[in-house]
Amino acid sequence: MERFEAEYMLETAWPPEKAAAVIAGEQSSGTFRPVPGETEALKARSAARVEVLEELGPCAGPSLPGAAGGAYRRARLVLSWPVANTGISLPNVMATVAGNLFELNCVAGLRLVDLRFPEGFVAGCPRPAFGVTGTRALSGVEGRPLIGTIIKPSIGLTAEETAAMVDTLCAAGIDFIKDDELQADGAVCPFDDRVRAVMAVIRAHAERTGKAVMYAFNLTGEVDEMRARHDLVLREGGSCVMVSANSVGLTGMLALRRHARLPIHLHRNGWGYLSRHPALGFDYAAWSKLWRLAGADHMHVNGLANKFCEGDDSVMVSARSLLSPLSGGHAGVTMPVFSSGQTALQAHGTWAALGTADLIFAAGGGIMAHPDGPAAGVRSLQDAWAAAMAGVSLAQAAKESPALAAAVRGFG
Amino acid sequence: MERFEAEYMLETAWPPEKAAAVIAGEQSSGTFRPVPGETEALKARSAARVEVLEELGPCAGPSLPGAAGGAYRRARLVLSWPVANTGISLPNVMATVAGNLFELNCVAGLRLVDLRFPEGFVAGCPRPAFGVTGTRALSGVEGRPLIGTIIKPSIGLTAEETAAMVDTLCAAGIDFIKDDELQADGAVCPFDDRVRAVMAVIRAHAERTGKAVMYAFNLTGEVDEMRARHDLVLREGGSCVMVSANSVGLTGMLALRRHARLPIHLHRNGWGYLSRHPALGFDYAAWSKLWRLAGADHMHVNGLANKFCEGDDSVMVSARSLLSPLSGGHAGVTMPVFSSGQTALQAHGTWAALGTADLIFAAGGGIMAHPDGPAAGVRSLQDAWAAAMAGVSLAQAAKESPALAAAVRGFG
Repeated sequence: MERFEAEYMLETAWPPEKAAAVIAGEQSSGTFRPVPGETEALKARSAARVEVLEELGPCAGPSLPGAAGGAYRRARLVLSWPVANTGISLPNVMATVAGNLFELNCVAGLRLVDLRFPEGFVAGCPRPAFGVTGTRALSGVEGRPLIGTIIKPSIGLTAEETAAMVDTLCAAGIDFIKDDELQADGAVCPFDDRVRAVMAVIRAHAERTGKAVMYAFNLTGEVDEMRARHDLVLREGGSCVMVSANSVGLTGMLALRRHARLPIHLHRNGWGYLSRHPALGFDYAAWSKLWRLAGADHMHVNGLANKFCEGDDSVMVSARSLLSPLSGGHAGVTMPVFSSGQTALQAHGTWAALGTADLIFAAGGGIMAHPDGPAAGVRSLQDAWAAAMAGVSLAQAAKESPALAAAVRGFG
Repeated sequence: MERFEAEYMLETAWPPEKAAAVIAGEQSSGTFRPVPGETEALKARSAARVEVLEELGPCAGPSLPGAAGGAYRRARLVLSWPVANTGISLPNVMATVAGNLFELNCVAGLRLVDLRFPEGFVAGCPRPAFGVTGTRALSGVEGRPLIGTIIKPSIGLTAEETAAMVDTLCAAGIDFIKDDELQADGAVCPFDDRVRAVMAVIRAHAERTGKAVMYAFNLTGEVDEMRARHDLVLREGGSCVMVSANSVGLTGMLALRRHARLPIHLHRNGWGYLSRHPALGFDYAAWSKLWRLAGADHMHVNGLANKFCEGDDSVMVSARSLLSPLSGGHAGVTMPVFSSGQTALQAHGTWAALGTADLIFAAGGGIMAHPDGPAAGVRSLQDAWAAAMAGVSLAQAAKESPALAAAVRGFG
């Protein structure tokens, strides 16, 4: 029978094999007292199995309060479940791999670090409909990252003010623009008004230049709202919609994915509460896999030297996880979106660490606050990436690009 | 303009007023570099406001890694936003009050402890359609808690085996039964088969005794699946559906609520990853309010002396929060569900701490593993609650109730 696997970092004061058995029992056929119905036949068809239990040695612990006391140890734990338990259902996989287990008192720390699904499960999930290829086709950008930005101030601009900013950004040569996650359908800037005003500008530029800027409209809301908003974007000639993962949930995302005819730009806001304590919650590789299987075409990964507390290594591990295949038969690659305090100064480091240009590189201040204006901001990012990909240093490239030189002076 | 409020426990090494300003800016019109568009007029209509900042003194800190260094302090922080920013949209409120702020590097700890919404916002949300009154009407239980149980083993029983267990439980006089959160629509026990088999048993008992046991069928899944499953439960004469909050998300929940004609039993599995570190994530009072506004009729709160690591005080704070009104004009009370290691021994403590019987008291082993069988298990819970509510001690009550006496001996 096909099985899916979850890998955890476990911290416990119990003998690890006992803690592993309790976790496996709690998340399948076991309970805290023996019950007559848990027969061998039932366990054979439904019980979770401990596939790997590798002790990693003692630790100071406990990382989390409320745990049973003693000497704390860490272990790598891999559990598996029959696909028959959940069916090909991401919401039910979520309840299985990340349900009532973080609060078990044998657990002094528990982090879900990876998920692995058999080919048939992956094949049965929606997965990204556009990914890298589709996004490049719609945006017309090949051989380099999409250079993008976020409308700022995040919230408060009217539809007309937003459109005016989009006009400036289109004139500056931008590839991609997104709403902030705070901007969905507020009274000052209703979604429908914004789409109509922005798309009129984008269409006008496209008629003149042949380049249709991709704009990710934040349609986060209830299912019927998201469907109607998606349809409006499509009718107006738009090429992308955005949604907040932790606001809509997997079921909300799946409803959007089943309906959508446009790439889905998935925002991870709230990721901090899922991940910031290293002994609790999720690694991005595990969490993002659920959303990739649900159909996310783009996902945020923060950026090098960002304004948050995440380190550069963690950012790059996240980005690489999105580019790794979902299974042998289905790549299902999701484009990583780099953002947060990004300027032309991070292009070389990002390229060096990632080795691909299949990404969206979004800069806010790095474009709008460029000393020579937004067009120079976009140009500085393009030139920095071209130099990085050609093996030319930032210092060397800045000698030949006034926009890049100004970025180095202004943001360095 | 009407505003909603979020209250946080903040830990920071920055001057607290500076950290509060950064958080307020990040979650409304501010950004990490000044941008020209953030005018005074824009701020007046859209900026978050620091309503309260109360320093609570120094702490050892940092509770979370990655924070800016220095001397750590805690503070109570209340922010407010105009409803105009989000509209009456719970998914967008989520992105606003719990978005990109837990990972700010001025934050060494951040916990959302409460949410407060103006009357018009509450009135515009779906809220519980059944709550206490509707649940009592459908289950026919008045003046005492609903005595409930969870089908165990959690997963692995066939539909017919589940129905046989329901037959035993109905004969034992149970009020309420629920699926485990791991049991939704697996191959061994497909949802539709389970509903048909279980409801045939429940209807047969109801014809004989006049009592229709409430069964919460776990319909967690995609939107169309949930709607179809709900409709099947309704057609078969069922009176409750169950869904996993963290599997479906607020948008999934709202889609179910807009469609449902039955009470929604909301399961909180995964709550541990949202709450177990005390300086990160959510207090239950804040998190549950979003789900109550979305329409949860029942919500889990764990139980006294439970098998998890949560303390009794925390359980009772959670339960009380569900019973407190959503606003002056809309109580919107959600019935607390006590479960996890519950037996007749916890009735007195629960009553003493809560002072109401408007709850579901679910025991697994406390019923099925009662020394004299399930009927005695149910009876022991009823007798314990009757005694507690009448001011009769457990010891005294056990003298008059053999079922309770056996529970005291067996579980004490």
